[in-house]
Amino acid sequence: MIKAAIVGGSGYTGSELARILCRHPGIEVAAITSRQNAGTPVHKVLPSLKGFIDLKFEAQLGEDADVDVAFLATPHGASMAIAPGLLSRGIKVIDLSGDYRLRDPAAYERWYGHPHQDLDGLQRAVYGMTELFCDAIAGADLVANPGCYPTCSVLSLAPLMASGLVEDKVIIDAKSGTSGAGAEPTKSTHHPACGSSITPYKVVGHRHTPEIKMALDRVSGAGNGVVFTPHLLPIVRGMLTTSYVTLKKDKSKNELQALYDSYYAGRRFVRHVAVPSIPSTVGSNFAEVGIELADAGTIVVMGALDNLVKGAAGQAVQNANIMFNMDETVGLDFPGLGV
Amino acid sequence: MIKAAIVGGSGYTGSELARILCRHPGIEVAAITSRQNAGTPVHKVLPSLKGFIDLKFEAQLGEDADVDVAFLATPHGASMAIAPGLLSRGIKVIDLSGDYRLRDPAAYERWYGHPHQDLDGLQRAVYGMTELFCDAIAGADLVANPGCYPTCSVLSLAPLMASGLVEDKVIIDAKSGTSGAGAEPTKSTHHPACGSSITPYKVVGHRHTPEIKMALDRVSGAGNGVVFTPHLLPIVRGMLTTSYVTLKKDKSKNELQALYDSYYAGRRFVRHVAVPSIPSTVGSNFAEVGIELADAGTIVVMGALDNLVKGAAGQAVQNANIMFNMDETVGLDFPGLGV
Amino acid sequence: MIKAAIVGGSGYTGSELARILCRHPGIEVAAITSRQNAGTPVHKVLPSLKGFIDLKFEAQLGEDADVDVAFLATPHGASMAIAPGLLSRGIKVIDLSGDYRLRDPAAYERWYGHPHQDLDGLQRAVYGMTELFCDAIAGADLVANPGCYPTCSVLSLAPLMASGLVEDKVIIDAKSGTSGAGAEPTKSTHHPACGSSITPYKVVGHRHTPEIKMALDRVSGAGNGVVFTPHLLPIVRGMLTTSYVTLKKDKSKNELQALYDSYYAGRRFVRHVAVPSIPSTVGSNFAEVGIELADAGTIVVMGALDNLVKGAAGQAVQNANIMFNMDETVGLDFPGLGV
Amino acid sequence: MIKAAIVGGSGYTGSELARILCRHPGIEVAAITSRQNAGTPVHKVLPSLKGFIDLKFEAQLGEDADVDVAFLATPHGASMAIAPGLLSRGIKVIDLSGDYRLRDPAAYERWYGHPHQDLDGLQRAVYGMTELFCDAIAGADLVANPGCYPTCSVLSLAPLMASGLVEDKVIIDAKSGTSGAGAEPTKSTHHPACGSSITPYKVVGHRHTPEIKMALDRVSGAGNGVVFTPHLLPIVRGMLTTSYVTLKKDKSKNELQALYDSYYAGRRFVRHVAVPSIPSTVGSNFAEVGIELADAGTIVVMGALDNLVKGAAGQAVQNANIMFNMDETVGLDFPGLGV
Repeated sequence: MIKAAIVGGSGYTGSELARILCRHPGIEVAAITSRQNAGTPVHKVLPSLKGFIDLKFEAQLGEDADVDVAFLATPHGASMAIAPGLLSRGIKVIDLSGDYRLRDPAAYERWYGHPHQDLDGLQRAVYGMTELFCDAIAGADLVANPGCYPTCSVLSLAPLMASGLVEDKVIIDAKSGTSGAGAEPTKSTHHPACGSSITPYKVVGHRHTPEIKMALDRVSGAGNGVVFTPHLLPIVRGMLTTSYVTLKKDKSKNELQALYDSYYAGRRFVRHVAVPSIPSTVGSNFAEVGIELADAGTIVVMGALDNLVKGAAGQAVQNANIMFNMDETVGLDFPGLGV
Repeated sequence: MIKAAIVGGSGYTGSELARILCRHPGIEVAAITSRQNAGTPVHKVLPSLKGFIDLKFEAQLGEDADVDVAFLATPHGASMAIAPGLLSRGIKVIDLSGDYRLRDPAAYERWYGHPHQDLDGLQRAVYGMTELFCDAIAGADLVANPGCYPTCSVLSLAPLMASGLVEDKVIIDAKSGTSGAGAEPTKSTHHPACGSSITPYKVVGHRHTPEIKMALDRVSGAGNGVVFTPHLLPIVRGMLTTSYVTLKKDKSKNELQALYDSYYAGRRFVRHVAVPSIPSTVGSNFAEVGIELADAGTIVVMGALDNLVKGAAGQAVQNANIMFNMDETVGLDFPGLGV
Repeated sequence: MIKAAIVGGSGYTGSELARILCRHPGIEVAAITSRQNAGTPVHKVLPSLKGFIDLKFEAQLGEDADVDVAFLATPHGASMAIAPGLLSRGIKVIDLSGDYRLRDPAAYERWYGHPHQDLDGLQRAVYGMTELFCDAIAGADLVANPGCYPTCSVLSLAPLMASGLVEDKVIIDAKSGTSGAGAEPTKSTHHPACGSSITPYKVVGHRHTPEIKMALDRVSGAGNGVVFTPHLLPIVRGMLTTSYVTLKKDKSKNELQALYDSYYAGRRFVRHVAVPSIPSTVGSNFAEVGIELADAGTIVVMGALDNLVKGAAGQAVQNANIMFNMDETVGLDFPGLGV
Repeated sequence: MIKAAIVGGSGYTGSELARILCRHPGIEVAAITSRQNAGTPVHKVLPSLKGFIDLKFEAQLGEDADVDVAFLATPHGASMAIAPGLLSRGIKVIDLSGDYRLRDPAAYERWYGHPHQDLDGLQRAVYGMTELFCDAIAGADLVANPGCYPTCSVLSLAPLMASGLVEDKVIIDAKSGTSGAGAEPTKSTHHPACGSSITPYKVVGHRHTPEIKMALDRVSGAGNGVVFTPHLLPIVRGMLTTSYVTLKKDKSKNELQALYDSYYAGRRFVRHVAVPSIPSTVGSNFAEVGIELADAGTIVVMGALDNLVKGAAGQAVQNANIMFNMDETVGLDFPGLGV
């Protein structure tokens, strides 16, 4: 049994990790931390886990903690302060923050506002978009778990990008449920402000933009521009991305459908459908992708997933499975709510 | 033209006052205050009022402000610090906070947690539930504008209470949109926490409980107990109360319907319907009330209104109309959105 | 491996049964029917089940179907036409419609509008509210699976009812997500009509009223009246009931908490909490119950659950587990989404 | 006083016309029709209009109806059957259906599935996007009131299109509240299907595509391609469009802002803001537009409005004002709800 620590267990991503791992047949939660809830039983803070996680929150992971892997569900900037120590003790690290996602330290500093503190780790980290980079993940001890927007948009665009057919800019219009903003109340997630609206935010300035571009470029080997506009949706869980690309030469819808079917053949968690549906994915690690031809040379590419599962905690567990030589589906092979 | 000040104009109640008064043919907004937005044009903070309110927020109402009436959309506790000064300068005051609602200073202290600072004002204040106490309101210079829950529940229960038929306790199960919680983000109004749920809160301990009891007792002349349970609804505007009372003797549904029709005959803003509907009232000063016979002697009483209009700013303007000898409907006679 | 048929598999209850059973280690879905989707693979209609259920919908269950149990997710009135035949072939039946819930044929006819067609079955049927009647369920071959409202309200009220302390009427103010209304579009579940409102419906006339009374009376051995008001909530999954009862003699809050703790000691799926939360239960078979003292002698009783799981398909599987001598938690022991 | 008929008064667009016109100082509702509600007082069907509209629904507009203008809130295909008769009797017509929007009969037939029945009317009709074509509207007797999506996207794009700067395709990602789908329940507007999701629909095949292209081409004098993807949002009222265009040469953000300010200078109902907000417009005839520079040469263009007001009934009344030589703001000059 693999022993796991969840660092930052009272946020939405951390508690989602606990929800998934408590049923995992090969990984057990051995420790869970939360600065503000230190000493409190997990189920007092997260009642739905009563009887599933019988631990107290610790202030921080002890020096002598006997764990094989640590999931860092910490704020941006905190992960890189603790990852090196964990790695030096032989603990594998899966970081769900943005700290190790951008390979280029200059890009990190530009988008996150301060210099990176762990350049060695940055070199060593493997970007954990499972379906695209599973070979590298298998050998990694430090995985940068992707953001929710990058996961949804890149998974839906990857077959086209890999085909070398995409010309010019990729335009991504993204819509996310509010749980993606985290557990801390803010003006933008105040219900009266967002509950009957859809709100564009950080237009042209969201940190997921360079991450998406980095991932798309790796898949394509090219350097298409990325225009990314996130919107806050009045739902709690779930995300949809609608992307627009231009092809270098015309392809029929059948050819494109075949391209998607073949690209994701054998991949359990990416489902190719006519029109992706958020409810089909909610609660599960599945992503749905679909395409439509708009007019000559323009393709509408859609993706849907649960931002807390495939967009965060589920993909992290999927990566852990691979890092520990288990089947990627272990503990994750259950369907979405559907309705 | 009556000149009005809105004190606390950047909260939801204050901006709703501005939205209503900017179209009022007999009252104009002469000043509007907001500590944190002092010096900023109103439309920078409230873009929907651009071209309707051409003022800047002031830090506070000047000593020499030339106004006839001040609407206090201030937090509980702040109104009683400024109302006496305003009254001494001949400015009528309509207080939308809870400061002057509970006539009994001991009750105030028990429910609000500190002693009342203006006992004279408390004696002088008239409780502004317009349809029930309009004669007293006409002569008042200090009106305590009712809470949203009391308005919705008391208006729907009043015909029965006044009939002397109600025995024993009144049970009020209330459901409110999130705008009733104000503009400040909190854990309970964080969208991921409340957006896919209905949450009971302050069960048996909400401050509107003694206010409801006070108002019901005035209407009935009796002293029925009140059990009041508020719930937070995942909608922004609108409120529904479902109340349960036992009658001392059986009445037919027709008799009860007649009682309601006659009680509210000639009152523009209370509409007697089969089943009250929130969307019928949203954006407007209308309340809808309806009743149903459950089984022998038990009546289900329903009320619906827009918590920011009839439950706050609209009723305040209705009271101002009466205090300045205008028809109560002036500036308020427009229908709800309906859908 | 127990072989199960789902009759009526394309509605919300039927597809929820499929979602749960496809992961059940002791029961497999051997057949699934849907008149309007006959011949179509299940995953074409329910994409989230692709790779989990590899069957086609059949028009109806064949005479020679080799199954041990049939879950009837059929409309009211249809179940009693097929249950006798299934039973005669030795197939156990769990009926999720209302057909076998009301033991009294006269009550059935009054509330459902037509005479009952299977009086033998009605005598034989065991009412499947698992936590309350598990002994009878263990020996049953025909189980009437309870309605969602009865499950939520009766589970939350049962400890008080069983104590013999409840005097007079029980008032139940219930709020349900829209999935409880089924998959067929109607005026009341049209999003523009219900999406920004909470709507009382069938006030004093809902069919779950006599079912609730029957279940409460069995628990109490008494005959308290029931006033039941359902409301349609603008959420998809989840239900809350807020009930009001008067006690014959005063009890402290501690005494009442102890009563609840002891009543549900050892029951995995009923969780006693301070304030029940819908999100804690969504997607899972857990119900949350909680109580509060209002004023002398009045108790506010709250319950929350997922109407499609503990309120329908989950409880049906829990009953099947018991009928086939498995632990009641098999295939159901996973937590709710939490957020 | 202008006398108006509303034909099709029980749908959402028709009842919104009634809501607006009942307060209009220059136009009165003289007749209102609804086939299925013929003979019923309007307020029985639309309770929020009780006391505002004292008419009964008529089955159809009488041959001798004494009205100056008819608003046709009829289904697509019905308007062209009645418009010619009305025009021949000297009644001006404002058609809110799609019948007279596409000037080209072949385009009409392709997108609406049947030949146009009134080619004379089609030639005569003026496309009523008020801010862009008010001179032609002033002289028209038949106005084709624009669709909600075209109004939102074209108003937000018009300053750029008119500048001649836009190169190549215009990509429009549109999100609409469910009231845009009309009052008739459907599978896609069933709350359980749409209430916790955002759903792309009619991707690349929505009838508003050619209408948008027609309007953009008129403004630009060019022939840019249009890619249009509508999404159904889980809100009732309100619409947002996010559009993406490429400029032929770089412009600074300041230059673009100035372009927008100058294009809409003096236009009451189009507000240029940083980021458009649905709640700022709800209930009102205002549209908000805003732009952002993505990267060299790409512009993100946003628009927001209330689909039932500026996107339908409000713009129709604005057009009527102009057709009858009133100021365009008469009866419409009230702000949106804001929250």
